[in-house]
Amino acid sequence: MLETNEVELCARYDALIHFVESALLAAGAAEDPAQSVARALAGASLRGVDSHGVRLLPHYCRVVQGGRINGAPRLSIERPSPAVAVVDADNGFGHHASYAAITEGVDLARTNGIAAVSVINSSHFGAAGCYVLEAAEQGFVALGFSNSDSLVLPHDGTQPFHGTNPLAFAAPVMGERPFLLDMATSIVPWNRIQDYRTKGLKVPEDTGVDAMGQMTTDPEKVHALLPVGALQHGYKGAGLASMLEVFSAVLTGMPHCSQLLSMASGDISTPRHLGHFFIVINPSAFVPKPIYDIGMAAYLADLRASPARANSKVMAPGDREWQRSDDRSENGIPVSPGLNLEFKTLAHALGIACPDYIQRR
Amino acid sequence: MLETNEVELCARYDALIHFVESALLAAGAAEDPAQSVARALAGASLRGVDSHGVRLLPHYCRVVQGGRINGAPRLSIERPSPAVAVVDADNGFGHHASYAAITEGVDLARTNGIAAVSVINSSHFGAAGCYVLEAAEQGFVALGFSNSDSLVLPHDGTQPFHGTNPLAFAAPVMGERPFLLDMATSIVPWNRIQDYRTKGLKVPEDTGVDAMGQMTTDPEKVHALLPVGALQHGYKGAGLASMLEVFSAVLTGMPHCSQLLSMASGDISTPRHLGHFFIVINPSAFVPKPIYDIGMAAYLADLRASPARANSKVMAPGDREWQRSDDRSENGIPVSPGLNLEFKTLAHALGIACPDYIQRR
Repeated sequence: MLETNEVELCARYDALIHFVESALLAAGAAEDPAQSVARALAGASLRGVDSHGVRLLPHYCRVVQGGRINGAPRLSIERPSPAVAVVDADNGFGHHASYAAITEGVDLARTNGIAAVSVINSSHFGAAGCYVLEAAEQGFVALGFSNSDSLVLPHDGTQPFHGTNPLAFAAPVMGERPFLLDMATSIVPWNRIQDYRTKGLKVPEDTGVDAMGQMTTDPEKVHALLPVGALQHGYKGAGLASMLEVFSAVLTGMPHCSQLLSMASGDISTPRHLGHFFIVINPSAFVPKPIYDIGMAAYLADLRASPARANSKVMAPGDREWQRSDDRSENGIPVSPGLNLEFKTLAHALGIACPDYIQRR
Repeated sequence: MLETNEVELCARYDALIHFVESALLAAGAAEDPAQSVARALAGASLRGVDSHGVRLLPHYCRVVQGGRINGAPRLSIERPSPAVAVVDADNGFGHHASYAAITEGVDLARTNGIAAVSVINSSHFGAAGCYVLEAAEQGFVALGFSNSDSLVLPHDGTQPFHGTNPLAFAAPVMGERPFLLDMATSIVPWNRIQDYRTKGLKVPEDTGVDAMGQMTTDPEKVHALLPVGALQHGYKGAGLASMLEVFSAVLTGMPHCSQLLSMASGDISTPRHLGHFFIVINPSAFVPKPIYDIGMAAYLADLRASPARANSKVMAPGDREWQRSDDRSENGIPVSPGLNLEFKTLAHALGIACPDYIQRR
């Protein structure tokens, strides 16, 4: 938990939006991509998804300066079939291309009932949830997929092969914020291991393996993560990761997981050519809006009313994120001492001001 | 493993197709639905998916005789949007309506690039993999979803809420049989528990809970299954199950998991009104066919070449099923002594011949 009773450094959403945008502009990005990245990162941080929030900014500044990411891409959008669009990200920020893909998807799904949009020649797009959420806020159901470089064992494997390949899904809920599922197909995100390292804690059993493919609880030795389902049922997580490769690499003509340049690679001048894939659905093409709204409300009410374990509560996908979002809208988004230091260094190097901080109550 | 070195009762695929069809016709089903069910069940058995294979026949005969399932449905198909179809199963067999949905989906995806088909007023459809496989064999990528009655805990819950809600995905592979993922979002299928009961074995830790929601390894006491990810990471499996409710119930206007009449209910005269949802994609709408084929081949080759644990092999989704299929095509599909007894009783009651058996080598 980032929330503690101690006073900690926090920033308002707007202040982070401003800081991310200023930094990216100073690092050489054009206005449109800088705005997209700011919105995606600050939004993820607001919802408590710190792994994919503003902590990514220093990395993004480095790779746009290094040339891996084209700061001023010319997106090209084609519509090769009536319900399909292909967005060429021109090696720019994945966030920028992905928001554009959702705009296309919503437009095409409005008339066709369903649409698919692939994104080619892209880069890391932050939290997959950002884009399906955008569709849901406009009244559409959406799925979003991406692959990433090798960090996760295939089932029965000993070496990393798949990425943490995320699957995101969102759907509108009348009178509420959207249903939102945003999950890696690995058992935990990679930065969870980094957390254990920082804190000197053991990694739970059945989470990661060392360079020889042997289970380890030593965070310094974790070389790869298990897929969802762990050793015994990992064919499910690995199967989902495989499915996401078909969507993100095979259907886009982009390299697959093990062919991708690592995000953490020292080579920051070579584009990575990631692919993403979005499916957008117009609920009204299937059932009248009142039927959809009543069905969704009834399902969520029954789910949330399910008997829970002691000291817990059964939540719907997104409930935790929206709770965090309410808290952080009111009290600010925590910025850890380490991240604050990185922000200071970055601001100094780019000649911009640090974010405005507030004290969390 | 069903395969042992002992001689056991086996039947050829064609013999099982003939037996299932004859039984359903005798039980009052019309020819089209009987053929669809026979194809789905014998196909699942051939691929080694015994939980969703011919063992379901006696149940299906009972419910069609009881009136829960309409043996002679009039499917009605509407196309409310250019890339959407809605198949009304008229309370008939889910298998029949789902094959029809795939035919619609392939037809619509061929011209639109992607299509979605919902199935309403349906019933149990057997293995979800059957239908996406049908699309893949015609050169299309497909996703298939269904919900089912409460057997699985929500994350942090103590009582069953979601069904074992399956997610299936298939994609064509040039020169090979399709990529095929067909997974329940529960940690294991329910019939695995029944297996442990029959064999008097303990259920592995972190698999099921008793009626009070407490973990148990006693198969007689298992009242609900954990979602994929188990206690610690079950928010992933439960999140996927939730997503499938949105597709199968909310977007179809059908009842959700906890509102559904249990498949095992003694009431065999009331229709269950299940919903299914299929998404079909034409790969050629996204990339030229040679790019797709080369990308898929390269991905699968790299996955299968991944270093494996001792005495195992990294497999692609479907590899195990196709191995089984080859073996069972050659040597026959095993029919357990218990199932043989059920078949005998059924054949006698319906006045039809038992399946032709062969001896497995």
